[in-house]
Amino acid sequence: MKPLVQLLAVEASPPCLQDNTGDLDRLKKNLLPMLAEPTLSVPFSRTVVVAESFRRAGFKGVAVVNDLLTGPELVDFLAAPPKVLAGVALDLGTTHLEVSLVDLLSGEILALANCPNSQIAFGADILSRIHFAVKGDGLQQLHQTVIADINGLCEELAAEVGLELVDLRAMAVSGNTTMVHFFLRLNPYHLCREPYIPLVNAPDPCRASDLALAIHPAAVVWVLPSVGSYFGGDLISGILASGLDQAEQTSMLIDVGTNAEVVLGNREWLVACAGAAGPALEGGVARMGMRAGPGAIEHVSWDEKSGDLLCQTIDNEPARGICGSGIIDLVAALYLGRIIDVRGKFRGGADGGRLIETTEGTAFVVVSAEHGAGGQAVTLGQVDLDALMRSKAAMYSILTTLVNQVGVGFADIERIFVAGAFGRHISPRQAITLGMLPDLPLTTYQPVGNSSLDGARRILLEGAARKRCRELVGKITYIELNVNQDFMIRFSGAKFIPHTDRSLFPSVPFFDD
Amino acid sequence: MKPLVQLLAVEASPPCLQDNTGDLDRLKKNLLPMLAEPTLSVPFSRTVVVAESFRRAGFKGVAVVNDLLTGPELVDFLAAPPKVLAGVALDLGTTHLEVSLVDLLSGEILALANCPNSQIAFGADILSRIHFAVKGDGLQQLHQTVIADINGLCEELAAEVGLELVDLRAMAVSGNTTMVHFFLRLNPYHLCREPYIPLVNAPDPCRASDLALAIHPAAVVWVLPSVGSYFGGDLISGILASGLDQAEQTSMLIDVGTNAEVVLGNREWLVACAGAAGPALEGGVARMGMRAGPGAIEHVSWDEKSGDLLCQTIDNEPARGICGSGIIDLVAALYLGRIIDVRGKFRGGADGGRLIETTEGTAFVVVSAEHGAGGQAVTLGQVDLDALMRSKAAMYSILTTLVNQVGVGFADIERIFVAGAFGRHISPRQAITLGMLPDLPLTTYQPVGNSSLDGARRILLEGAARKRCRELVGKITYIELNVNQDFMIRFSGAKFIPHTDRSLFPSVPFFDD
Repeated sequence: MKPLVQLLAVEASPPCLQDNTGDLDRLKKNLLPMLAEPTLSVPFSRTVVVAESFRRAGFKGVAVVNDLLTGPELVDFLAAPPKVLAGVALDLGTTHLEVSLVDLLSGEILALANCPNSQIAFGADILSRIHFAVKGDGLQQLHQTVIADINGLCEELAAEVGLELVDLRAMAVSGNTTMVHFFLRLNPYHLCREPYIPLVNAPDPCRASDLALAIHPAAVVWVLPSVGSYFGGDLISGILASGLDQAEQTSMLIDVGTNAEVVLGNREWLVACAGAAGPALEGGVARMGMRAGPGAIEHVSWDEKSGDLLCQTIDNEPARGICGSGIIDLVAALYLGRIIDVRGKFRGGADGGRLIETTEGTAFVVVSAEHGAGGQAVTLGQVDLDALMRSKAAMYSILTTLVNQVGVGFADIERIFVAGAFGRHISPRQAITLGMLPDLPLTTYQPVGNSSLDGARRILLEGAARKRCRELVGKITYIELNVNQDFMIRFSGAKFIPHTDRSLFPSVPFFDD
Repeated sequence: MKPLVQLLAVEASPPCLQDNTGDLDRLKKNLLPMLAEPTLSVPFSRTVVVAESFRRAGFKGVAVVNDLLTGPELVDFLAAPPKVLAGVALDLGTTHLEVSLVDLLSGEILALANCPNSQIAFGADILSRIHFAVKGDGLQQLHQTVIADINGLCEELAAEVGLELVDLRAMAVSGNTTMVHFFLRLNPYHLCREPYIPLVNAPDPCRASDLALAIHPAAVVWVLPSVGSYFGGDLISGILASGLDQAEQTSMLIDVGTNAEVVLGNREWLVACAGAAGPALEGGVARMGMRAGPGAIEHVSWDEKSGDLLCQTIDNEPARGICGSGIIDLVAALYLGRIIDVRGKFRGGADGGRLIETTEGTAFVVVSAEHGAGGQAVTLGQVDLDALMRSKAAMYSILTTLVNQVGVGFADIERIFVAGAFGRHISPRQAITLGMLPDLPLTTYQPVGNSSLDGARRILLEGAARKRCRELVGKITYIELNVNQDFMIRFSGAKFIPHTDRSLFPSVPFFDD
């Protein structure tokens, strides 16, 4: 454990005529033997405050030292150790920001907070925000908006544990490549244009004052590196958290948001790709799609006996919509109940009168208006169904393309880590039924929670993790799917339930219509 | 030769789908093999400009890399090599600033400029400026004043060779400890209070933008370290320039300004001290004392035949006053002409009627009103004479105390380097006659010119010099004279011409009054 910022206790002999070393030099001289590195730098902006605090404290107290890539950096001096040496881990998501306040000495999480990303006002998805960013002062607006969100969250965290904002002395940031560009005020123009090049993959750590973050101005801000425009630091976080890069056995990490990002490998090699999975899985497409929250239908099953659907909502509140995991369950149930066919089309007939015609085509009434929240029915239209079919086909194609590329089979994969809310909520069983995930023993699938936030926490705490993730960037072979012929062919075959090649899904019932 | 800022030619392959490395990472990847160090940092403030310039130049051009203590730092990218890679060497003197513009590739000096230090408006000497600095916004005023002077000089330099200010990409600064505090806006409060401690001896390099210098904002500003409050970077420069620290034989370096600063040593050891020599030698005391300039009496000799003084002025213009070297010559001549006695007092009598009584006591008419510039006589009063006697006694006492401290004799000293205007102008012969410098063969004395400026130039050009001067700080044993009993005893003995112990000065005629 070597936190991103360290406290070093110092008790120096005071200056005298026989030892006229300057104040700052005296402090450095006392600190250097405690460090593994031969030099200790002091940024110009901290020179006066460090030297004067050291003298004011009677040449005795605690030095605050950032761990940069270029070596240790002395940024503050305190007369007494702080109550807590606190750092902020930030998951910088496109739709949501999540933070944890971490005690850098114990590793303990002291507080959590989250908020929607206010940049949504400038564009719901990454692409529309990039377009906004490159016009006028769009980038500056996006930057300021997200900094304001983060400052608000930091204030919440600090308040919760009775600290001041200046007591937060480090921040680790894990986010997708575009969000990191907005965070650092970097022009994202080339991110969405072939060949999709970031301005920087691995930015050097900067200081909070560089970004007008409201935490301690000298707090080091460490941003997880990205591998490409569509493979961000959030996924590097996932690798850190899952230990994929250190295991002997081959494993896979799947992170599904607007994009599906996948890494395959072991301690010898790592291959990755990312592709548009479509917003269906994030709950953005289905008219009643929503993020997981009270009233969201999160699990649906087909009751063989009654021949009906059983819906379970979050907090058992009246249904308001369907979240990502709910849609997968629902469509799998509709398939098992033979309400849709292998192409994902409503079959008509034996539906108990739940198929209705709307201005947008056929729809299935999942929950009737009578039982829905606010007297509103929850429905799934053919349009939504088609979107999900594309998403699931994309997902399976991404996985097979990746596996195929390195010449391993799905059976060779020891473990599949599934990150984020998607991993926490989906039933691998139903995803396999749809042909979205490969037909492997269910124990292969392991949710890893918010690995983006967890990776950022590790960056705050472990020098080895910081070193590891910089090395990871060079170690990962990234496969660009946008121009991959193999992927396009596989995509067509995956647009059926479970697949045109039924032998790939022996566990899924097959109905010969 | 490894200049403080380097140009590295790069021709990178442009990004493509098979190589989606970010722009900045691509540049760093191409630069790293050219560097001896394993990492290359980019300051946050330069991230965007470097990455965007690299892309705009078609991934081909010249990278600008600063050499910091923490390793190389990438700060700019140019589509084509600049006309000149230029740096500024600055001698930051209490009364005068001198700069040279150095071609960092050839080492050539392209231009020179100098100006009075405008801080004089806030106090003629160091001590009064320190007092001014610690009141209200005094420090800020002193800082801004000297920065404005430097910016003016840089503008002159750039104009002289047809460059823009932003073409000046590095600065090395050599000055006494107090001037460096003002330059870096550091509180000098403890510099003049026992035990005389600087805020910092060896500040880390900073950037021009940190100090609002008008040269390139990312230009690295490298300040020579000091050893103590009275032993500044200017003297470290002198050591660099004289090579004192690398020679097998023991040598001495003397730098006389308001203070006399002396270093003794060889490649094995270095001992130093500094003491107030009094302003007499800088020409501040004698009523007609002046800095070396047209009309200043710079050489005086006693003509045995005529029994009269022969005065030589700079540019042979009518005499306006006496500069430091002229005063030493004059007093030596007055001694040899028996106009003053061994105590430095006017003897009266055989003076050819040139002793006059003034409101301030007896004075000697060096040049009559008839021959002086503007009909003004040049005189030397007893008061001035007394000041010079104290200065010369201080100087000799400093030298003997230092030599005594390390147990060597003057005869063991191979060479005595005499820095600055003092070194350029004084006659060692007359200084020996007065008992100011030890009675050694005249060839022992070697002027080294403005070694402060020369040391700064070496910092711009040589990595080895930068390393050497940081190491020097730890290698020099500094002897504090303010509390040295030995020094006080020696001082009393040295207040006679040449000395109470005449055996020390065998070459000086002795008059038994």
